[in-house]
Amino acid sequence: MRIGIVGGTGDIGEGMAMRLSPIFDVIVGSREKEKAEATCQLGSETLKKRGLACSLTGVSNQDAVDDGDVVILAIPFKHVITTLESLHGFEDKIVISPVNPMEKRDHFMFIPPPEGSAALMIRGLLPKMARICSAFNTIAANRWKAIDEELVYSVPVCGDDADAKRIVMEIVNKISQLQALDAGPLAASSMVESLTPLLLNIARYNKMRDVGIQIR
Amino acid sequence: MRIGIVGGTGDIGEGMAMRLSPIFDVIVGSREKEKAEATCQLGSETLKKRGLACSLTGVSNQDAVDDGDVVILAIPFKHVITTLESLHGFEDKIVISPVNPMEKRDHFMFIPPPEGSAALMIRGLLPKMARICSAFNTIAANRWKAIDEELVYSVPVCGDDADAKRIVMEIVNKISQLQALDAGPLAASSMVESLTPLLLNIARYNKMRDVGIQIR
Repeated sequence: MRIGIVGGTGDIGEGMAMRLSPIFDVIVGSREKEKAEATCQLGSETLKKRGLACSLTGVSNQDAVDDGDVVILAIPFKHVITTLESLHGFEDKIVISPVNPMEKRDHFMFIPPPEGSAALMIRGLLPKMARICSAFNTIAANRWKAIDEELVYSVPVCGDDADAKRIVMEIVNKISQLQALDAGPLAASSMVESLTPLLLNIARYNKMRDVGIQIR
Repeated sequence: MRIGIVGGTGDIGEGMAMRLSPIFDVIVGSREKEKAEATCQLGSETLKKRGLACSLTGVSNQDAVDDGDVVILAIPFKHVITTLESLHGFEDKIVISPVNPMEKRDHFMFIPPPEGSAALMIRGLLPKMARICSAFNTIAANRWKAIDEELVYSVPVCGDDADAKRIVMEIVNKISQLQALDAGPLAASSMVESLTPLLLNIARYNKMRDVGIQIR
């Protein structure tokens, strides 16, 4: 399976690429292909030092969509609309949204778009045939990148297409010790997306770092 | 310290009373005092069988407010307004809201009141001097009641009064293995309250029971 990461040179995308590329073919997209290539070279070297073979290729964001079976939108909420308007070819793709609409005011707050969640907004921006799931919303960038440490977290997954959700949950369960949990239809994504500002507040007020969640 | 539980004969209130009464003086309130007395007698016997001494007294909801230093509102969201309109004397009390505004539609959804959260709505219904914290939002009734099992969960606590929040966090940390986490000001409660419908969905879709959360 080939996984394309749109925005793959950002903090989270880069960490995801490191974790995913020893398991899947990963194509890292960026607005600047050269940047994606540099990220992938660095990532490959880091993994090689640990004796890990990987499949990691830097491309444009559009190529990450075109060549991915599954496309992860590793972009901040504020860039979602402009990024998706600049891309096409999402028909038949499984699209993963780890996007959290939030703002830092006095504290972090969940500030959803009118659709109710980033995932529902993304569904409205993409062709009807795209199969969208929310997943990976709560894994901090630093945890993705700390590849010598296990990821012992729960990952709620929302989506309306049962096959797509099953595939996304299988991907989640192959990464480190992540545990995929079915969190219902895409309309339930708001309750997953609002976890991240909560975790950021908890990290801040309790002097913790890169806080994650286990559900059991 | 004396803890009054308004709605203490409901599923959650009853479980809370069992867990709290070996540690604190607990007064269980109900609209019907006789019901509260019966609940307390049963609870005391159950605890005594396990060799646990407890301080557990059944009273009216109004007495639970009047005689509690800390008052827990163990009532469903739909009963909050009528219950609080029927009670007085919250000045100077520390008030704990474990209330989650949610509805079961196709799945459970967080449906906050216009104030943004149950906690903020409750602040508007109580006198200005009442010091409100949200806490205990995500512990399932069955877990409260299963007194032979440890509660190994995180409990996010929100509030605007630093002293009150510290006291509430100390109460949380004395119960079984609960871990209190400062989750910010009362305005951040929406992100805590929306956890519960998420956990109920996860329990349902993954055939789990009485799901809880650990944040680390």
